[in-house]
Amino acid sequence: MLEIIQKSYLLQHWEFLVLFMTIGYFVVRLTRKEKKNSNKRSNDDEMIARDYRIEDDHGENEADITPALEEIKMIPYRGVQVKLAGGADEFYNLMNDRRSVRKFSNKAVDMEVIKKCIHAAGTSPSGAHTEPWTFCVVKSDEMKAQIREIVESEEYTNYTQRMSKQWTTDLEPLRTTYIKEYLTEAPYIIVVFKQVYGTRSDGGRKAHYYNEISCAISVGILLCALQAAGLSSLTTTPLNCGPALRTLLNRPINEKLLVLLPVGYSTDDCEVPSLQRKSIEEIMEVY
Amino acid sequence: MLEIIQKSYLLQHWEFLVLFMTIGYFVVRLTRKEKKNSNKRSNDDEMIARDYRIEDDHGENEADITPALEEIKMIPYRGVQVKLAGGADEFYNLMNDRRSVRKFSNKAVDMEVIKKCIHAAGTSPSGAHTEPWTFCVVKSDEMKAQIREIVESEEYTNYTQRMSKQWTTDLEPLRTTYIKEYLTEAPYIIVVFKQVYGTRSDGGRKAHYYNEISCAISVGILLCALQAAGLSSLTTTPLNCGPALRTLLNRPINEKLLVLLPVGYSTDDCEVPSLQRKSIEEIMEVY
Repeated sequence: MLEIIQKSYLLQHWEFLVLFMTIGYFVVRLTRKEKKNSNKRSNDDEMIARDYRIEDDHGENEADITPALEEIKMIPYRGVQVKLAGGADEFYNLMNDRRSVRKFSNKAVDMEVIKKCIHAAGTSPSGAHTEPWTFCVVKSDEMKAQIREIVESEEYTNYTQRMSKQWTTDLEPLRTTYIKEYLTEAPYIIVVFKQVYGTRSDGGRKAHYYNEISCAISVGILLCALQAAGLSSLTTTPLNCGPALRTLLNRPINEKLLVLLPVGYSTDDCEVPSLQRKSIEEIMEVY
Repeated sequence: MLEIIQKSYLLQHWEFLVLFMTIGYFVVRLTRKEKKNSNKRSNDDEMIARDYRIEDDHGENEADITPALEEIKMIPYRGVQVKLAGGADEFYNLMNDRRSVRKFSNKAVDMEVIKKCIHAAGTSPSGAHTEPWTFCVVKSDEMKAQIREIVESEEYTNYTQRMSKQWTTDLEPLRTTYIKEYLTEAPYIIVVFKQVYGTRSDGGRKAHYYNEISCAISVGILLCALQAAGLSSLTTTPLNCGPALRTLLNRPINEKLLVLLPVGYSTDDCEVPSLQRKSIEEIMEVY
């Protein structure tokens, strides 16, 4: 056996073999690096386009492709019919009064008010009108306690292990810790899930373009609705709690946690940090 | 020279050398694959935590770590002081009247109104109160024309190459194409950038936690403000236009395009698709 190998022409000229392998190795390495960099160069948008293309490729052919929406007729639009009497000024005064609150009283809130606020949030625009949101309203004390357990246990790990020293330091002035009393004190917790994809009428998977942005815009509208109704809230993004909360609330696998908001009235002794907001000059540029 | 090589002990036993190299190659390959998969398993939240940790690691040591906010004193909060007289119902009626508009008249809009609406958007909550948004208001006809050129050229490529057949089909009922007349017809274009990081007072990089969600929430508030002011808009996410728009508007590298909205009044002959919104039962669950 060894003799055959030793007699082989190629192996008698092993120098070339090693040379070729070395060259080949570096060619492959360089090509990979090039590819990696070009991926890096492409921005988020391109990744979104690529992702949808990949999603769409699952067993679909041209004949299958139907619009997610039925054929829709066009109707005349006469411009904004409902506005605020005080216009932009009135609205600014409304929202400038909003504060994130961490101490909630157990004063009852009418479920109909919560429902109306969520209905308002559902008027949000969304990519290709996919409306990729689910608002879970938790009023059961038992379930609120379970949510608190999940969030506090994960947040303890976040504060002590996952979050950087800079991050926890940045949060210090806001007095946030892993203890979340508001999760059992507030009359409601609204858990907002983004639907990362949907289901078409034929059972196929429906792409939800820009679902996170759409869903976060609807949360912005929700915050305005709650303020208009005289209610306080706190917008939280509990790190790593998504899977456990999804299981607890029995949500389907296409739904991912976006934000969680306790909603209600603040306590009489509630305090908030004396924050300044950026001036209009700091956030707006005119061209 | 060749003689020296031929006499070398290692090269006389080149079989082992080749064997070791081959084994080494597969070990490296397997390790890489393992690492890639473990990255895949981790969810979005974990990635956020990891990203911030990496960001924070750049040349920082414990002594450097100061909160992004100054020491802030706590002040009493007496609950919501400014609400709407009609509460949640009034707000729902306001927002249910909102429609995305694609045909704008050139009727002038007072810049002060736009400014107030953006000021309202700036009251949005944000991760660790970082306020990671910049609202660029474009009123110059020349610059609007340049924006249209950038967007139409990229959108042509999007519609014909980047977007899947399913995506363009999903958009058909909404009558969207790569021709964007509204970009030169509307009196203003608001280009919203998310600041993916900021600058601390000592010149260091300041992490902007959840900047995309925060920024999209502020866009939700902006849409409410525009509606309250009687103005129409269209929320668009122009695919791949980020870098070109950032260059055109001379924005710093920490800013990335989130959305672009033409703002103004609709034309008299404006039509909108006769869309239905999901019912409250479809978007809300009670626990």
